[in-house]
Amino acid sequence: MSRARVYAVEPWQLRETRLDQRLLARSESLFALSNGHLGLRGNLDEADPHALPGTYLNSFYELRPLPYAEGGYGYPESGQTIVNVTDGKVIRLLVDDEPFDVRDGRLLHHERVLDLRDGVLRREVVWRCAAGPTVRIRSTRLVSLTHRSTAAIEYEVEPVDVPVRVIVQSELVANESLPGPMRDPRVSAVLRAPLVAEGHHADGPQALLMHGTRESGLHLAAGMDHVVEGPSGLRCDSVAYDDLARTTVVCRLSPGQRLRLVKLLAYSRSEHRSRSTLRDQVVAALDGARFEEWEGLLTAQRARLDTFWDRADVQVDGDAEVQQAVRLALFHVLQAGAQVRGRPIAAKGLTGPGYDGQVFWDTERFVLPVLSYLQPEAAAEALRWRRSTLDLARERAATLGWAGAAFPWRTIRGQECSGYWPAGTAAVHVGADIADAVVRHVNATGDAAFERDAGVDLLVETARMWASFGHHDRRGDFHLDGVTGPDEYTAVADDNIYTNLMAQRNLTAAADVVERHPDRAAALDVRSEEIAAWRAAAAAMSVPYDEELGVHPQVRGFTLRKEWDFAATRPDEYPLMLHFPYLDLYRSQVVKQADLVLAMHWCGDAFTPEDKARNFAYYEQRTVRDSSLSACAQAVLAAETGHLGLAHDYIGEVALMDLHDLHRNTRDGLHIASLAGVWLSLVAGLGGLRDHDGVLSFAPRLPEGLDRLAFALLWHGLRVGVEIRPHEAVYSLRAGDDGDAELELRHHNEPLLLTTNAPVTRPIPAAGPLTPEPVQPAGREPIRRRAEPHSPPEPRRR
Amino acid sequence: MSRARVYAVEPWQLRETRLDQRLLARSESLFALSNGHLGLRGNLDEADPHALPGTYLNSFYELRPLPYAEGGYGYPESGQTIVNVTDGKVIRLLVDDEPFDVRDGRLLHHERVLDLRDGVLRREVVWRCAAGPTVRIRSTRLVSLTHRSTAAIEYEVEPVDVPVRVIVQSELVANESLPGPMRDPRVSAVLRAPLVAEGHHADGPQALLMHGTRESGLHLAAGMDHVVEGPSGLRCDSVAYDDLARTTVVCRLSPGQRLRLVKLLAYSRSEHRSRSTLRDQVVAALDGARFEEWEGLLTAQRARLDTFWDRADVQVDGDAEVQQAVRLALFHVLQAGAQVRGRPIAAKGLTGPGYDGQVFWDTERFVLPVLSYLQPEAAAEALRWRRSTLDLARERAATLGWAGAAFPWRTIRGQECSGYWPAGTAAVHVGADIADAVVRHVNATGDAAFERDAGVDLLVETARMWASFGHHDRRGDFHLDGVTGPDEYTAVADDNIYTNLMAQRNLTAAADVVERHPDRAAALDVRSEEIAAWRAAAAAMSVPYDEELGVHPQVRGFTLRKEWDFAATRPDEYPLMLHFPYLDLYRSQVVKQADLVLAMHWCGDAFTPEDKARNFAYYEQRTVRDSSLSACAQAVLAAETGHLGLAHDYIGEVALMDLHDLHRNTRDGLHIASLAGVWLSLVAGLGGLRDHDGVLSFAPRLPEGLDRLAFALLWHGLRVGVEIRPHEAVYSLRAGDDGDAELELRHHNEPLLLTTNAPVTRPIPAAGPLTPEPVQPAGREPIRRRAEPHSPPEPRRR
Repeated sequence: MSRARVYAVEPWQLRETRLDQRLLARSESLFALSNGHLGLRGNLDEADPHALPGTYLNSFYELRPLPYAEGGYGYPESGQTIVNVTDGKVIRLLVDDEPFDVRDGRLLHHERVLDLRDGVLRREVVWRCAAGPTVRIRSTRLVSLTHRSTAAIEYEVEPVDVPVRVIVQSELVANESLPGPMRDPRVSAVLRAPLVAEGHHADGPQALLMHGTRESGLHLAAGMDHVVEGPSGLRCDSVAYDDLARTTVVCRLSPGQRLRLVKLLAYSRSEHRSRSTLRDQVVAALDGARFEEWEGLLTAQRARLDTFWDRADVQVDGDAEVQQAVRLALFHVLQAGAQVRGRPIAAKGLTGPGYDGQVFWDTERFVLPVLSYLQPEAAAEALRWRRSTLDLARERAATLGWAGAAFPWRTIRGQECSGYWPAGTAAVHVGADIADAVVRHVNATGDAAFERDAGVDLLVETARMWASFGHHDRRGDFHLDGVTGPDEYTAVADDNIYTNLMAQRNLTAAADVVERHPDRAAALDVRSEEIAAWRAAAAAMSVPYDEELGVHPQVRGFTLRKEWDFAATRPDEYPLMLHFPYLDLYRSQVVKQADLVLAMHWCGDAFTPEDKARNFAYYEQRTVRDSSLSACAQAVLAAETGHLGLAHDYIGEVALMDLHDLHRNTRDGLHIASLAGVWLSLVAGLGGLRDHDGVLSFAPRLPEGLDRLAFALLWHGLRVGVEIRPHEAVYSLRAGDDGDAELELRHHNEPLLLTTNAPVTRPIPAAGPLTPEPVQPAGREPIRRRAEPHSPPEPRRR
Repeated sequence: MSRARVYAVEPWQLRETRLDQRLLARSESLFALSNGHLGLRGNLDEADPHALPGTYLNSFYELRPLPYAEGGYGYPESGQTIVNVTDGKVIRLLVDDEPFDVRDGRLLHHERVLDLRDGVLRREVVWRCAAGPTVRIRSTRLVSLTHRSTAAIEYEVEPVDVPVRVIVQSELVANESLPGPMRDPRVSAVLRAPLVAEGHHADGPQALLMHGTRESGLHLAAGMDHVVEGPSGLRCDSVAYDDLARTTVVCRLSPGQRLRLVKLLAYSRSEHRSRSTLRDQVVAALDGARFEEWEGLLTAQRARLDTFWDRADVQVDGDAEVQQAVRLALFHVLQAGAQVRGRPIAAKGLTGPGYDGQVFWDTERFVLPVLSYLQPEAAAEALRWRRSTLDLARERAATLGWAGAAFPWRTIRGQECSGYWPAGTAAVHVGADIADAVVRHVNATGDAAFERDAGVDLLVETARMWASFGHHDRRGDFHLDGVTGPDEYTAVADDNIYTNLMAQRNLTAAADVVERHPDRAAALDVRSEEIAAWRAAAAAMSVPYDEELGVHPQVRGFTLRKEWDFAATRPDEYPLMLHFPYLDLYRSQVVKQADLVLAMHWCGDAFTPEDKARNFAYYEQRTVRDSSLSACAQAVLAAETGHLGLAHDYIGEVALMDLHDLHRNTRDGLHIASLAGVWLSLVAGLGGLRDHDGVLSFAPRLPEGLDRLAFALLWHGLRVGVEIRPHEAVYSLRAGDDGDAELELRHHNEPLLLTTNAPVTRPIPAAGPLTPEPVQPAGREPIRRRAEPHSPPEPRRR
């Protein structure tokens, strides 16, 4: 958790100013480029040194057995793990036969810049060989946000002082050796040599490798092509073998001369297409990239990002670290979803092998609500992927003895891959999270075609699951027993309020949607008695309440459980799950991550302001944030309950989660849900954005120290701009075609009619918190970020 | 679940009258001989055909890795599995070069008899070779109940019609190949070739093999010696190799002549003794057996059993099957514990590899209370074994973050081997079961030395565990949350009443025992505040109650859970755990095995008669008996609540569990706890035996159809005899030295002073049940065994 300055704090880029090998892994994740289809970790061009080499194609996975000391009915026997596919990033350099390696010779200058507007990773190095000569190397790497199969690298070498002979080896490498597995179960299973060679080809500056997986039946072609510029006498040839293709460029360079290489990369994958089709697709993608030329690729990339930032940019005046972090976060969220096209957005996107490259509930809970506002096509595609796995989810439900669909807790292809059911299959809320993402997407976009094509099926089959899973007790109350909610330190418990409220909405939304689409309902054989049963279950949904404390127990009985002994818990015993048995965690009042607090964000209309304040204070005392999915919801509720300084602290934590590696696992990839959470913590937190029942509302309020917060979002194709200053908020509206439009929204519960004619300014009403400042478990307070108005100002850490 | 008559119903023996290969495995278990130290499955002498060859030494185990798809803190990484050690049972026969195999030629006569008074397994076969000649083979096998390392086989061959040449190969075989693993998790992990050869020796009629395990560091010597009688010209030689020793006897026999071989077997094992010591111990054991001679071994065996039956025999007039079964059960319970000497009594004894040969809570809950009455030395030794593992249990508690000792859910050597914590480590009641066995043993025997040497430590360290594990809620009630009780279809739940009541007794017993042994308490650093805390926890122990139903929920909230849809459950879907996910079982009102009902037996003084009646009826409707540990408690409570016909049905089920293979897994070994439960179901059920607070009480009552039940037990060294007839009970007392003694006990709640002078007869008061006849889930009724007084008599099935 180094706080030493590694990356410069700059508004529109992430700049690494020195090469610290201990931070190599983190930088590889932060500098990862991806378009949601293809992802390249920020490995150095020359491949070594590296922490985790990584090149990923969305859903290109291998199967591995899931073993059990004691098996059980319905346990998945096979897991899906993302494969590190053929690495096309590798460009090795030899200067007068001395291999360029930052660990040898002398690194006179090193800089890497992730440019958030250009969408490229730039590098500039000045290196003096042990033998004496000095060279300058520049590279620019790009994964195209517009051409999904394509990446490209511009690579330049020039001598600084004396003439040199330069050899550049540009490679495709399959089956790279990876570091061994770690004990932490969150880290991916390492697959050794997962790719089986199926063909290779080399011709002039072009080469390609074809591989397949052993078990999962997937095939892959990776190709490279090169445009080379250099002095006369330059030679360029390619060779290819099973697991290696190499294009070699040799030339002599004098100072003032330069070797420039543009490496074009293309990938193609398939479950069922023939080898020759795959090969031809790769060649076509390379031809296409060659046609665009490097400059064309750069221009398209910039244009794509200009469009994105116009609608998505967030401006934070008064906290430069958060300003940088929210843009970095949005850039990575965009990258994760841009070209996802009917495939999932994984927990780590395509930035690392963490969690086996699988997708969890947090995509629907944290990422899609943001994408529905900023990049709605991507949200729709990710939900269409869920729709495409519906038959597998139906099968799973049948296996488990339930009606409808049981979506997997973790998966790549749609099959359940959870090897520990109390924190996997029991987390049935995933179904309601998917349903909620559907509803919010339709609310935000008004996309009736999406609702009809994908939405109805998802809503109906998840509602069916709830109706069969739960039961009415003898008093009529509807219960969902034996489930695990978002907080993984409480499991297999009864009436988790988050799950119950989400299921309630799911049931109601299904009942509503089938009434809007009677033909689809008929196709799904939905009868009126079934609809009535959904509404009855929703109406009777049990929501436990501790009358004595005036607090909602996150599961039935929670507030009477044993208190965790925080005073006796050492700082090095976090995360608790690595130092205490589940048995003790589960039966104690200790919360890994926001659960009831998360419910108060997304189902906030089910709680009174007074309950929210008391609940928030209660759970703050017991929440340790051993998950990256907690601080975001805590920021939102801290803001809503009037604890704006605390909200600012939590926003800082969410924003710096990966930049400062607060959970010490950024090496395995970025936390995409938490990155989406940066936006949520600012926009739903300080902006007070809610969209209960499809009504857009804001309740903006800034903490001390922030002078301005501006953001925008799309609502039914309209760009809604919000600019918040300490005492007022300015709302603006713009139609896509610059035509006229109007929109009714709410500002601090007051209706406000917004038109494209002129912005509207509203004062921010004064209000204080209902409870004293909440406290956190000793040692688990967020790092203080807030301004301290009543004490001498601390030096700000930015 | 074949009801075809395989074994004759006879009072003092189990006789197999035909050889059915489909039942080979069951017979191997039922005909197993053991003395608690050494166990031989009832394999045929000639080794083939077999189902599961088995020779076991108590606690001779190998380690195997326990894999997890997703690991967790505190999960055991290594499991212990009983090893099938060197097989000394093998005696092969060739008649005129044709190998004797019951599948070849013609089996003219086959009979095996397990003689419960002689303690031997006899076999007689008449076999005609395919080539024509006929021979008669007789064998008698014995595992000495008095010489723990020794077994012996008398083997005789005689031609029936024509002269033959006979070759007998008597063998020691290591690393026998075993059939492959099955999917059922209850079946043992198969270890392939677990023994590493460490030496062998052969000399005349004697040979021995020495082996060690690969991982667990155990060593073993197995030796055989032979006394051979036959016609002149007989040759006898031995050879030995790494995994095989063979003594070959060759002779010619004419009708009227006989070859007789007495094979003596000895085993020695060690963790730390030298190879030569092990070898010499085996040779000495063989020398000792040779000195005793076959007849001496037989006589000692009979004498040992005469003593046992004098105190332990149960007579059941009116149900010949139950009569036979209870004696078979007691024989096997005796065998399991006879020479256990500081080692555990495993769930299967030494009769098969089921459950990996591990010991569970059921030894303390079901077996030891019976042994404390019938074979108190064995109960004491098994508890001394627990005491010997106390440091491991302390370590485990420390790992889990608890005070005191956390005994393993399943183990051989004392380390936790449970690979699924919700039905393993979470079943913390095992600690209270051990404590209860200590208390009941001391109550039954008055053995103060045992209490001081082993009892105090066990009681104190288990009490410490409860005090640290549980907590007082803000109202002061003491809770044990997140535990698994006896019913494995409900897990990780709060306030399991069985666990809570047992822990309450544990805490109180610890507080009492340290007051009796202040010096031991001081050595354990027990302070007065600690004792006060134990008493306070016991006094405040939470016992949930459903006021609306007037029923105790077996765990908090149980009676509001979803009802299981028994109507939709097919007969082939039992046991449910093989066809439904734990997730659904855990959250439904479906009970695998008696839990609250078990609490009503052992903690019966915590319930009113009315509660017992209502509770019993409630749980009867929801209990499926997918465990062999259920029917026994149901028999006891059926009897106590006045449903005597139902009690008789359950007694039949307990009695025939293994004989009729009702759970289809007798192949893997006998259910020792259930066999002890046969005695409990009769004596605690129909006899009404209870010993709450150390007072011996009876409430005898016979169902229709039983004319008489007689049993005895030891109480402080006195033999208490009870003879029950339909309308009266006769109590008698005998001192061990035939001297004078008196004892106060209770008959149907009335005090009764019993002396050695004369038996006392008391009438049995009339009483009817408080509730209508309870019903069971459809299809899960016990097989009806009761007499039907009001309908035309069915043909009785015995």
